[in-house]
Amino acid sequence: MRPQVLIIGCGFGGLEAARALRAADVDVTVIDKTNHHLFQPLLYQVATAGLSAPSIAAPIRHLFRGRHRVTTLLGEVVGIDAAARTATLKDGAQLRWDQLIVAAGATHSYFGRDDWAAHAPGLKTLDDAFEIRRRVLLAFEAAEREDDPARRAALMQFAVIGAGPTGVELAGTLAEIARHTLPGEFRRIDPRQARVLLVEGGARVLQAMPEGLSESAREQLAALGVEVRLNARVTGIDAEGLDIATPSGPERLASRCIVWAAGVAASPLGRALAAATGCVLDRAGRVVVEPDLSLKGHPDIQVIGDLAAAQSHAPGREPKPVPGVSPGAKQMGRCAAANIGRRLRGEATQAFRYRDYGNLATIGRHSAVVDLGTPLGALRFSGYAAWLFWLFAHIWFLIGFRNRFVVLMDWAWAYWTYDRSARVVAGRGLSEASPASGARA
Amino acid sequence: MRPQVLIIGCGFGGLEAARALRAADVDVTVIDKTNHHLFQPLLYQVATAGLSAPSIAAPIRHLFRGRHRVTTLLGEVVGIDAAARTATLKDGAQLRWDQLIVAAGATHSYFGRDDWAAHAPGLKTLDDAFEIRRRVLLAFEAAEREDDPARRAALMQFAVIGAGPTGVELAGTLAEIARHTLPGEFRRIDPRQARVLLVEGGARVLQAMPEGLSESAREQLAALGVEVRLNARVTGIDAEGLDIATPSGPERLASRCIVWAAGVAASPLGRALAAATGCVLDRAGRVVVEPDLSLKGHPDIQVIGDLAAAQSHAPGREPKPVPGVSPGAKQMGRCAAANIGRRLRGEATQAFRYRDYGNLATIGRHSAVVDLGTPLGALRFSGYAAWLFWLFAHIWFLIGFRNRFVVLMDWAWAYWTYDRSARVVAGRGLSEASPASGARA
Repeated sequence: MRPQVLIIGCGFGGLEAARALRAADVDVTVIDKTNHHLFQPLLYQVATAGLSAPSIAAPIRHLFRGRHRVTTLLGEVVGIDAAARTATLKDGAQLRWDQLIVAAGATHSYFGRDDWAAHAPGLKTLDDAFEIRRRVLLAFEAAEREDDPARRAALMQFAVIGAGPTGVELAGTLAEIARHTLPGEFRRIDPRQARVLLVEGGARVLQAMPEGLSESAREQLAALGVEVRLNARVTGIDAEGLDIATPSGPERLASRCIVWAAGVAASPLGRALAAATGCVLDRAGRVVVEPDLSLKGHPDIQVIGDLAAAQSHAPGREPKPVPGVSPGAKQMGRCAAANIGRRLRGEATQAFRYRDYGNLATIGRHSAVVDLGTPLGALRFSGYAAWLFWLFAHIWFLIGFRNRFVVLMDWAWAYWTYDRSARVVAGRGLSEASPASGARA
Repeated sequence: MRPQVLIIGCGFGGLEAARALRAADVDVTVIDKTNHHLFQPLLYQVATAGLSAPSIAAPIRHLFRGRHRVTTLLGEVVGIDAAARTATLKDGAQLRWDQLIVAAGATHSYFGRDDWAAHAPGLKTLDDAFEIRRRVLLAFEAAEREDDPARRAALMQFAVIGAGPTGVELAGTLAEIARHTLPGEFRRIDPRQARVLLVEGGARVLQAMPEGLSESAREQLAALGVEVRLNARVTGIDAEGLDIATPSGPERLASRCIVWAAGVAASPLGRALAAATGCVLDRAGRVVVEPDLSLKGHPDIQVIGDLAAAQSHAPGREPKPVPGVSPGAKQMGRCAAANIGRRLRGEATQAFRYRDYGNLATIGRHSAVVDLGTPLGALRFSGYAAWLFWLFAHIWFLIGFRNRFVVLMDWAWAYWTYDRSARVVAGRGLSEASPASGARA
């Protein structure tokens, strides 16, 4: 009987591992909480009504339809038994494995203030995206029906917390919607008067980027109409707005539509792994792994992607932490698959080495920043050229030819018409779910 | 100040009325419970993962962006005051009107057995479609994880109740998914062994069609693999299946995924109208209207679409009931708008006349029935030609050039690949919502 490889989670890491295992003589089981692989980098487009969910989500079992040694299961793993080599599902079922790859990813963290979640949803799943889309669109609908100027202004004030790539994309796109998509469709309000605030605790946006590009991104955000608030730490969030602490003292920002793009925490499965194997977790709850991505004393368990606190081991260089980006997860997936092959052949495993091909972030129409590592050194540019580069890079990496084509079409349409094709809110709308109620539809 | 026309509901009737009022010198307010006009005839495609929601739903205010005298509001009307000429919204707000067009449509009816709703969702809204999509896809997922043969068989048995157009479309498409879309993607089950039951209380399917076409539809359904049960009255529905009464006695059908396509009831707004105006409601709760679609004693109130029990008045012929189809609603919308114009000009209103251009229903791949009224008499055909006719007719009537194009693309793709582009279930999947739990995600 072939060795059984269990992969928990089918994000970028898990999907790549399963694909790379094609070369190995093993049976693979991929289990995920949802039935689809999500192209996370474009999730903000679903949240801002630019793309429909199916454009960026591919059914997992469809991706493996030709791989008869790959079994896809829908379910949530809640426990691991390292000695018995089993995984326990939420519904009590158990799965046996000989080799385990844990790629359960990350979720958003409110730094212990989970009461903020109801007022400031994060953006990790399709449900999150639908909820943000609903709140954004319903905020304008509520403003159109609001007679009181103060309440109307609050309804038209949007706050995005956290100026990482997701926060920057969301803020830039919200400004674009208010300025270009919605004007002309309302009779009582002028959507162009909507304010989009991007609240960042640090000193600059896109802190993973070189300073020059951060500054360029800030300027491009301002040009799009986003009010960037740096060094502004969030101290409170409620249904009516948020409180921030700034160098010039505390401040209150009214907003009925707040999006959380600040903190991420590793999947709770990390704690289950720690309980089962005694592995160490870092402050973000990520699993500290060996150079070859396995767990100390458990060579049959590997952790990859956002759940792993991994180091890149380049010959003759100091180990460097691997950034939590999709190329990192994919490369870890390939490495884990290769190491399983080596182990089965009785060879020594290899340490993970992260190859950094650069970093890019989009901001909005004609606006992006790109930082590429080339053999000739860093290549950095921003603005229109960077935006085009980002566009085609993302379409290229989209899962499946068809989605690429659909997304390209949607974008071409949106580009020429400023229209956004997915401005649909399911559920009963205002009458049952006001933007502040946070109702899940 | 211009006369204020209030249109309640933006389905086919309300949308057409608002468009036709372009000719009149009036201010129009369109209010709807949702932010989108839904192309109902293709809703079953969203429920069966063939189309994404935005492909068949257009933001209402976007449809009126160029009409500066049309105001779009999101809200739910719960009360009418005919004397004060106001409409009361669920949140207490009031809207004034001089002319009222009520086009609130219909919802599904369980014939007083509302406890069936949790086990057999109907198909009227996008939420309904998502819920059905989720149950269908999760049923196969659950079957793949089920070891007990009996429970597995029950999970792979689908029941559609009601063999009207929607029920026929759903059953035919479910059979197509099981036989053509899913095979090859599962390792433990064979989706082709799924059973699709179409349960109809009457003696034939598509009873609005001529007998010959009903018989042809039944044969096409059988060819697609649907088991049609005629003269089978549903007597009970629970989480495990349904009970039916047949000429040969009672019978139990096991099914974990049941869809309700049997009964429709007029919007509850009909009762509010009756309370406000003393108008008469028929057995289905529809408002009995005057020949010109107004209410007796209330010429300033007109009721159109599925909410109206209207008659067609052709010169020299007996009045005939108007069928509850989208062309009927659209024609009523145009008639109501024209009568408002006549009233404002002091002219006499005209009686509504329904022009029947025929009737068509699709069944599945290459399968449909068409019944056209032509000057030369009835033109009836079925099968491949009817299917092509249905395809282009529906794409043609789709709202907005872009949607037409997107839908045509999706269908072309689905046709050649048997793939379905929207096989995405948002929410946490099985672990939080089993097909039987009826959880709203």
